Amino acid sequence: MPMIRAEFISGKTEAQKRELVEALTRETARVLEVRKESVWVVLQEVEPENWAVAGTPLSDR
Amino acid sequence: MPMIRAEFISGKTEAQKRELVEALTRETARVLEVRKESVWVVLQEVEPENWAVAGTPLSDR
Amino acid sequence: MPMIRAEFISGKTEAQKRELVEALTRETARVLEVRKESVWVVLQEVEPENWAVAGTPLSDR
Amino acid sequence: MPMIRAEFISGKTEAQKRELVEALTRETARVLEVRKESVWVVLQEVEPENWAVAGTPLSDR
Amino acid sequence: MPMIRAEFISGKTEAQKRELVEALTRETARVLEVRKESVWVVLQEVEPENWAVAGTPLSDR
Amino acid sequence: MPMIRAEFISGKTEAQKRELVEALTRETARVLEVRKESVWVVLQEVEPENWAVAGTPLSDR
Repeated sequence: MPMIRAEFISGKTEAQKRELVEALTRETARVLEVRKESVWVVLQEVEPENWAVAGTPLSDR
Repeated sequence: MPMIRAEFISGKTEAQKRELVEALTRETARVLEVRKESVWVVLQEVEPENWAVAGTPLSDR
Repeated sequence: MPMIRAEFISGKTEAQKRELVEALTRETARVLEVRKESVWVVLQEVEPENWAVAGTPLSDR
Repeated sequence: MPMIRAEFISGKTEAQKRELVEALTRETARVLEVRKESVWVVLQEVEPENWAVAGTPLSDR
Repeated sequence: MPMIRAEFISGKTEAQKRELVEALTRETARVLEVRKESVWVVLQEVEPENWAVAGTPLSDR
Repeated sequence: MPMIRAEFISGKTEAQKRELVEALTRETARVLEVRKESVWVVLQEVEPENWAVAGTPLSDR
C-alpha cells in the first residue's frame, strides 16, 4: 500500500502532473511488486517564496 | 502531545471539517489517555487532480 | 480517499494502537461520508527525545 | 542534507517568512555542522479553520 | 528542487530500495525537466501494525 | 501554533539534537512573534540508505 508524495515548485502543466503521477505509480508498483491500484500519489505544489535553499527563497533566483 | 493530520479531497463543508476535527481530537484523547488540549489536528485539502490512485487523478473519475 | 496520520510519543500498547486506528477510521468515514475501505491510517511513534515543546524535549519532563 | 518544514497559521508577512527561512537555515547548518547550501526549508501556511487545538479550529479564537 | 517521499511497508530488500530511489529520481527529473541532482528522495518504511486500511492493521492480513 | 519538523541523517549526538530543538524553537518564536510554549518541534532521523540525492543513497557517499 505505498504512498508517494511529490513536492515541487508550482507552475507545472496539467500534462506534466498527469505524466508524473502515472510514472511514479508505474515505477513504484514495478519495483515494490504491488498492484498499481494499491499505489496512492499526492502532489504538493509549493510556491517559490515558500521553498528555500541555503536560506534564500527560490523566488529570488 | 499527539498530532493528527487528515488529508482528503477538497470540497467538504465547513460543518464537516468542524465535526472531523472534533471527532479526531476526542477519539485520540480518549484512546491515548491524554487531555484534549494536547491534541493538534491539521486538515489538508487536496485538489482532485493532485491525488491519484492507480496512476489516475481522482479528477478523472 | 482520506489519509490520516497520527504522530504520538512511543510507548502505547498494541491494544491502544489498534483502537486508535479503528476509531480514526470510523470517524473519518462517518464524517466525510466515505467507505471505511477508502481510509488509510498511518501511525508514527516518536521517541520522547525527538519531540520538543517550548524547546525542551519531552524526555526531560 | 537536512530538510526543515515549518507549518504555521497563514497571515505572516513576506519579511517574516524570509527571516524565518534564513534563521532556520542558519541554525540548522550551525548545529548539524553542514553547509547552508545543503539545507532546504519548506513553509506550509495553514488556514486557521484547518488547524485545531483541543478540537476547536483556531479560526474560532 | 523536487522532494519525493515514498512510504511503504517495511520488509523490502536493499536492492528494491536502491532501484526505487533510482526510478523515482529518474522519472521526476524527466517529467519535471529538472536535473537529477536537484531531486531528493526519502524512503519511510512503516511497520505493518502501524498502517491500517479500513481500520485494520496490515499486520492482520 | 507553529510545528517545525526537521529531517536529517541519523548519527547526530544528543547534545546536537537538544541544541537544534532549542534553536529552532527560539528562532520560530522570535520571528513569528509567538510564545515558545506554542512551538512544537519533531526530529526525524533518516538512515543514510533511505535518503537519496540524484538517485544515489547517501550511504554510498
